[in-house]
Amino acid sequence: MTAVTVAPPSPNLALNQLVDRRRAEGASLVHLAFGEARLPVLPQLAAQLAAGASRSAYGPVAGAESVRRAVAGYFTRRRLPTEPDRVMVAPGSKPLLMALQLVVPGDLLLPRPAWNSYAPQARYAGKKVFGVPVPAECGGVPAPDALRETLHRARAAGADPRLLVLTLPDNPTGTVAPPALIRDLCALARAEDLLIVSDEIYRDLVHDPDATPYLSPAEVAPERTVVTSGLSKTLGLGGWRIGVARFPSGDTGALLRDATLAAASEIWSTLAGPMQQVAEYAYAEPPEITARMRASARLHGAVARAVHRTAVEAGAVCRPPTGGFYVYPDFAPLRDRLAARGVTDSASLAARLLDDAGIVVLAGHLLGDAPQALRFKAATSLLYGDERQQHEALHAADPTRLPHIATELTRIAEGFARLTGAA
Amino acid sequence: MTAVTVAPPSPNLALNQLVDRRRAEGASLVHLAFGEARLPVLPQLAAQLAAGASRSAYGPVAGAESVRRAVAGYFTRRRLPTEPDRVMVAPGSKPLLMALQLVVPGDLLLPRPAWNSYAPQARYAGKKVFGVPVPAECGGVPAPDALRETLHRARAAGADPRLLVLTLPDNPTGTVAPPALIRDLCALARAEDLLIVSDEIYRDLVHDPDATPYLSPAEVAPERTVVTSGLSKTLGLGGWRIGVARFPSGDTGALLRDATLAAASEIWSTLAGPMQQVAEYAYAEPPEITARMRASARLHGAVARAVHRTAVEAGAVCRPPTGGFYVYPDFAPLRDRLAARGVTDSASLAARLLDDAGIVVLAGHLLGDAPQALRFKAATSLLYGDERQQHEALHAADPTRLPHIATELTRIAEGFARLTGAA
Repeated sequence: MTAVTVAPPSPNLALNQLVDRRRAEGASLVHLAFGEARLPVLPQLAAQLAAGASRSAYGPVAGAESVRRAVAGYFTRRRLPTEPDRVMVAPGSKPLLMALQLVVPGDLLLPRPAWNSYAPQARYAGKKVFGVPVPAECGGVPAPDALRETLHRARAAGADPRLLVLTLPDNPTGTVAPPALIRDLCALARAEDLLIVSDEIYRDLVHDPDATPYLSPAEVAPERTVVTSGLSKTLGLGGWRIGVARFPSGDTGALLRDATLAAASEIWSTLAGPMQQVAEYAYAEPPEITARMRASARLHGAVARAVHRTAVEAGAVCRPPTGGFYVYPDFAPLRDRLAARGVTDSASLAARLLDDAGIVVLAGHLLGDAPQALRFKAATSLLYGDERQQHEALHAADPTRLPHIATELTRIAEGFARLTGAA
Repeated sequence: MTAVTVAPPSPNLALNQLVDRRRAEGASLVHLAFGEARLPVLPQLAAQLAAGASRSAYGPVAGAESVRRAVAGYFTRRRLPTEPDRVMVAPGSKPLLMALQLVVPGDLLLPRPAWNSYAPQARYAGKKVFGVPVPAECGGVPAPDALRETLHRARAAGADPRLLVLTLPDNPTGTVAPPALIRDLCALARAEDLLIVSDEIYRDLVHDPDATPYLSPAEVAPERTVVTSGLSKTLGLGGWRIGVARFPSGDTGALLRDATLAAASEIWSTLAGPMQQVAEYAYAEPPEITARMRASARLHGAVARAVHRTAVEAGAVCRPPTGGFYVYPDFAPLRDRLAARGVTDSASLAARLLDDAGIVVLAGHLLGDAPQALRFKAATSLLYGDERQQHEALHAADPTRLPHIATELTRIAEGFARLTGAA
């Protein structure tokens, strides 16, 4: 029988299955390894979904004009003037990212660590992947000098990197790259003729927009930056699969849009009609949407900062989170102490946290990071409890003091202490 | 700026844009070039969609267990015993077909003509495409001798065809391959170690199931046949994007499912939760679903047969349609007469029908057919009128006598007559 090329299952997938097995065996776990913004669906969005039922025709591949107009407005309000014909909606931003990798020639440059689907998508598209370490100050972007060096080394070896993915705010580090760095990277992209894909799906979850300046690469290099986003994170709608892309200006942008549209027409047709109705409503940003985004950002910030504090108190170094709902601690300062306990790399670190403390994290090497580094990603958005508790958390003055969240935070602190031998 | 590989837009897409332009210029057109089952959404399905709003978490990539159980029941009732773990749901069957092409190595064998997305998907997956003429009796399957010959010629030239797509009932010919032919092809697939993808999205639209025996390749070669399907055609839900796949039995089947699951996790995550609720309900086949499927099949059959009759009366040869909502006439008998009018291939044939008669069809070469052949696909499901008229058509004893449908049929007959110089 025909042999099948089996890619390794997505690490989140494999981990979720392990979590399910352990729970079925009766284990009580703190699951910090899945990037889901676990919050209730706004009733207004449920009403739009129901009202969209009659949208049962295929319709335009890019999405209906009215939907694209709403999305264009969303970007325009964020200093990214946008015409509706530069917008595409899709069943999540994943298929858009996949289509872009299929239609843009050449190889891929990624920050290291990076979200775990960019690299496998590149392999499906027949691309080589070059990971470039992120700077000490933030993740989601490669350090410019390291990027230049990687690029030239790759070219010398016969590769052809043309696509650079940036993530703002970043998954996995939960940080926002500062404007000066974005400007440097855009200048480099221009000089080296790279196309930028700026994954901004966490953009509306910057914890404190007044304290954290935000510059999209599309503001600096509009002719070569595609922005992708969606409603999964901002509105807790991961399971509704609503993604968007904003294409570059100019002729290349139009060409890239047409090529992506052609790929979309063959791979998924369009975003489901009822979901387009939801998108049209949400991207117009009526007051309850804005209010929910703000409340979510505040909640994610408070809990991510609490987990960050816990990691630092346990002896890790960790970039302070400023957007999204992740922290990415580095236990390098405790390497000797951990080695004495058999923990020598990110795989054994994650395994030990699971076995000894029931804490589930995503080991750094699964995100492209150096395997020997003692780093992992923790998604802090799974700590909000059941639906009633999620509502409570959204409206609490200090959500970390709510008993159901405080208990989890204590458990994490105890788990870190056990890991390092402090308890 | 980085060059972008631009694939030609999907032919349906380009044609739809042309139709929009012509209509904007005031043309009145008979649009027969888009494979949409234009029928109203059942109110029970709209209710399920609304009830599924709370399914906002990502959930399992393959779909929830309850959904896969319903789909497994659907296949089991069709002589295809199925365990839920051999089922996957997705946002349409297109992404499933794409993922299969990405994970199965080697090149692709297609019937010629075939639905217009298989070949572009193969090119995105880096595969060569080998079209094999269909037999005189039906479409959707290659003629076995021609298949054997193509296969050996391809291998001699260094290609490695491993995947064979069959379409039952067929798009574009509207026919169902007879069981004997399916058995021959399965034997050939076994002898040559090919994996079969059986696209059965029109299965419940066999016009007269008592008169048309149906044998799925998965009944004959269960160890090497993937079946894909969905609700787009059967229930007129193209814009809701609900597709399913049933994987082969045995170890290779499990391996193929795991590989496809891994690809799905990177490319689209999962089918939207509210759509999973719709699928769970529809695949359980409560009475109103079965009734709608039967009424649709009857309507599609009556109108497709009427268009078939019209084509034959105009002098074309055409396989009588037995499933789905397409006819695929061949004007070869009128080649000389058409040549005198400047019509010498499928492109000029389709262009002349549009220009002279306002009839929009999909030229055969866009479906992989020989460009010089005088063949096209006509989708007859766009003739049912507005929503009120669609209801009327579903319940009419003879829908072809309804004034709004009869008028269109007359216009098609007049258009064919003008094309051939008979009017």
